[in-house]
Amino acid sequence: MVKDLSHLLSDQSKGRQPSPLKSAFKYYGKDDIVFLGGGLPMADYFPWEKIVAYSPEPPFEDGIGAQPSVTGKSVVSEVHKHKVEEFDIPLARSLQYGNTQGNQELVQFLKDHTEMIHNVPYSEWDLCLTIGNTQSWEACIRTFCNPGDAILVEEFTFPSAVETARNLNVEFVPVKMDAYGIIPSALDELLANWDSSKPIPKLLYSICTGQNPTGSSLNEERRREIYSIACKYDFIIIEDEPYYFLQMNEYETGKKTELKEQTHEEFLNALVKSFISMDVEGRVLRLDSFSKVLAPGSRIGWIVGQSALLERFIRLHEVSIQAPSGFSQSIVQALLGRWGQSGYVDWLIALRKEYTIKRDFTIQALEKYMPTEVVSWTPPIAGMFFTIVLDAAKHPEFKTKYNSDPLEVENAVYEHGLKDGCLMIPGSWFKAPNVPKTNETTFFYRGTYAAVPLETLGVGLERFANAVKAEFGL
Amino acid sequence: MVKDLSHLLSDQSKGRQPSPLKSAFKYYGKDDIVFLGGGLPMADYFPWEKIVAYSPEPPFEDGIGAQPSVTGKSVVSEVHKHKVEEFDIPLARSLQYGNTQGNQELVQFLKDHTEMIHNVPYSEWDLCLTIGNTQSWEACIRTFCNPGDAILVEEFTFPSAVETARNLNVEFVPVKMDAYGIIPSALDELLANWDSSKPIPKLLYSICTGQNPTGSSLNEERRREIYSIACKYDFIIIEDEPYYFLQMNEYETGKKTELKEQTHEEFLNALVKSFISMDVEGRVLRLDSFSKVLAPGSRIGWIVGQSALLERFIRLHEVSIQAPSGFSQSIVQALLGRWGQSGYVDWLIALRKEYTIKRDFTIQALEKYMPTEVVSWTPPIAGMFFTIVLDAAKHPEFKTKYNSDPLEVENAVYEHGLKDGCLMIPGSWFKAPNVPKTNETTFFYRGTYAAVPLETLGVGLERFANAVKAEFGL
Repeated sequence: MVKDLSHLLSDQSKGRQPSPLKSAFKYYGKDDIVFLGGGLPMADYFPWEKIVAYSPEPPFEDGIGAQPSVTGKSVVSEVHKHKVEEFDIPLARSLQYGNTQGNQELVQFLKDHTEMIHNVPYSEWDLCLTIGNTQSWEACIRTFCNPGDAILVEEFTFPSAVETARNLNVEFVPVKMDAYGIIPSALDELLANWDSSKPIPKLLYSICTGQNPTGSSLNEERRREIYSIACKYDFIIIEDEPYYFLQMNEYETGKKTELKEQTHEEFLNALVKSFISMDVEGRVLRLDSFSKVLAPGSRIGWIVGQSALLERFIRLHEVSIQAPSGFSQSIVQALLGRWGQSGYVDWLIALRKEYTIKRDFTIQALEKYMPTEVVSWTPPIAGMFFTIVLDAAKHPEFKTKYNSDPLEVENAVYEHGLKDGCLMIPGSWFKAPNVPKTNETTFFYRGTYAAVPLETLGVGLERFANAVKAEFGL
Repeated sequence: MVKDLSHLLSDQSKGRQPSPLKSAFKYYGKDDIVFLGGGLPMADYFPWEKIVAYSPEPPFEDGIGAQPSVTGKSVVSEVHKHKVEEFDIPLARSLQYGNTQGNQELVQFLKDHTEMIHNVPYSEWDLCLTIGNTQSWEACIRTFCNPGDAILVEEFTFPSAVETARNLNVEFVPVKMDAYGIIPSALDELLANWDSSKPIPKLLYSICTGQNPTGSSLNEERRREIYSIACKYDFIIIEDEPYYFLQMNEYETGKKTELKEQTHEEFLNALVKSFISMDVEGRVLRLDSFSKVLAPGSRIGWIVGQSALLERFIRLHEVSIQAPSGFSQSIVQALLGRWGQSGYVDWLIALRKEYTIKRDFTIQALEKYMPTEVVSWTPPIAGMFFTIVLDAAKHPEFKTKYNSDPLEVENAVYEHGLKDGCLMIPGSWFKAPNVPKTNETTFFYRGTYAAVPLETLGVGLERFANAVKAEFGL
């Protein structure tokens, strides 16, 4: 049963009104009314008559990196000023002042996709476009948090997400994680012992699959536990899921990378259950994006959640971003319309394969080069990131040269790696505000296998391994 | 001499830090470093190899509404994944996580354009892309205003701009206008009598050319006076100028519309001097946009101002919008690069001609249909809007039926117009907050000649004129 969560809205969000001019716009386009109300330029004056985009063709058996000009197979997406294909967003509409929620064709494609992947367990859900998850996240904070409110965050998280929230004067409450993400019992304990003079945080922000920076992924069991904690303490879960489709099989040492194409059924069944898929109360907002699966520059993301909450986002967008680019909407939808839901799944399966190859190569390189006396890792099962964990206490000069401070060792190895020609980011850079000090001597580095070709990746990891060995005197 | 205006920044803006990860990014792309720092997808995986757009060709002698498929003349803009033309933004870059300021090719084109049009009188100016003037305006408020701060606004202004500011808990101080925009002496008097227990407003927000809703335009003399008031009282002028290039000759009753093409020199000389063109102290932020001259759906605007202030906008954009759509940037720049500065001026001249035809037609229709006993107007010299002013005191039942309330008469005529099939927006809908009550009996309606073909416009104005006559018993 979907709950009314309007008590969680921020004061600003509660106060947002539709523009008074909107009441006049209901007469726009009526046959018997000459509408002199709106300052819209005529589409005749948009200097684009037609846009044609060339893209690869499903089922991508030559790989997603294979370019149509080489394979000879391409999907040609033609978008005209006026409607030709049923699924296209004509330029006369996409390039006009637009529907803040998003053009219906793309919204519908994404709703069908959401239904297929997540099977949202209530009917009053909706979807609104954004210009990417950073903006979606900012909109979440502005919709729910008053200045001074607290939010729950993973103890290591995406620094830009922290900056976004800090800009809005929000306080951070970090939640303990392990190699598999948030520890549900730690979250429950934190809230059970909450200082009752302060309100319970309204939001939990989690990058739950292929987490940035740890590479960890919450399994279904943990998600169910966390969801029931959210219901118990009445907060909203913001699942920020740009890496959701970069899920892979578990890594198995010594096993060759499995390159058989998954069937659609295998692919869909293997995806971890999302928070929104178990959201019977309507207290999850799912942030999705094309950034990691198509291209970041599309600047199209979307939020899925209960309609009554999404309406508040639309009010905010009307007076800030207005809508994502019409070029982006027309071009992306032209491709998705031609690929169809099935072709899009083909793409996601092929993408997953590329990342599996990279992940496997990375872990094999770690196995080959890293001194396991001081370095350990948990192979990621999703996303773009891997981490290596080191124990500063194993450094022979930990007490003498580094004053028993793991941060100093972390920095020394970072600098040494850089000098030797490989950059990995120190884990401490991702520490959320207000994480309590502990006596732990372990620390980590975040690397990515997304951005570089395999050969370069191997060279880099060997260099970094040598830097670790040199620093630790191995 | 450009002034340091950092004392005008909001607390939030002062506190914005670059991401710590940015310090690592200086190693990105260096030959001798394997960079495992950033979660960027590889451009090989962006499913767009090439985008081709078809646009009209300068000098547009068949008019800007003439489509290339009909005239046979077209500019074909091809953007590839990798760089081909010097001026193009290749898709591999535009579709990647990007430069928050904007891709250099487009930024440079707009800087050259700004230099040509405004000749900014100091050297330390810069330009950063936004996703349109609504977002630019929001960024201005967030960069300068703390909650509770006051801003100066035109007494009739764009309701969406008011909502944007209201959402950020800003107070409004309306400035008196007449048919030619803000009255400088009224602004000076307002500030001379300012309650010294409150800080002077930090911003003046003005839609100075073809103002929305009044259609008024500030002439050079008024701008110079307002600029010197800004220097005297130390505030920043936000000139929101989407309609700047829709400037026309003065309307002359009985004269046929002048359809001779202007030369570039005539066009450039006839443009009213902008605030930024007289900004010796660096206290103007100019908000420009493609929305009215190319297409609103491009979602590309830009801010021009002193570099030290723009740097603060870039910090904000990094944690909110990130950057405008890469599709938009590539496609718009591909067209501008092919048109060149000169072709773009051809376009603006041709656009101006279309609007001049519409403006002239509109005023001629007003002259033909409106009962001049109760209706008056000042023909606009810029923009998309015209207004008609009525005097409620001339209504025979003003005191009896309408309780001497001009708003009631305004609403009655609006409703009557709507019933007769023409919608014009009541001027009171645009009144800024906190405008003091007066005994004035005049009120106005805003109409637009932008959105409808001429014939329809004529039909609408005749209907509205008849509604006025019927209401006023003429």
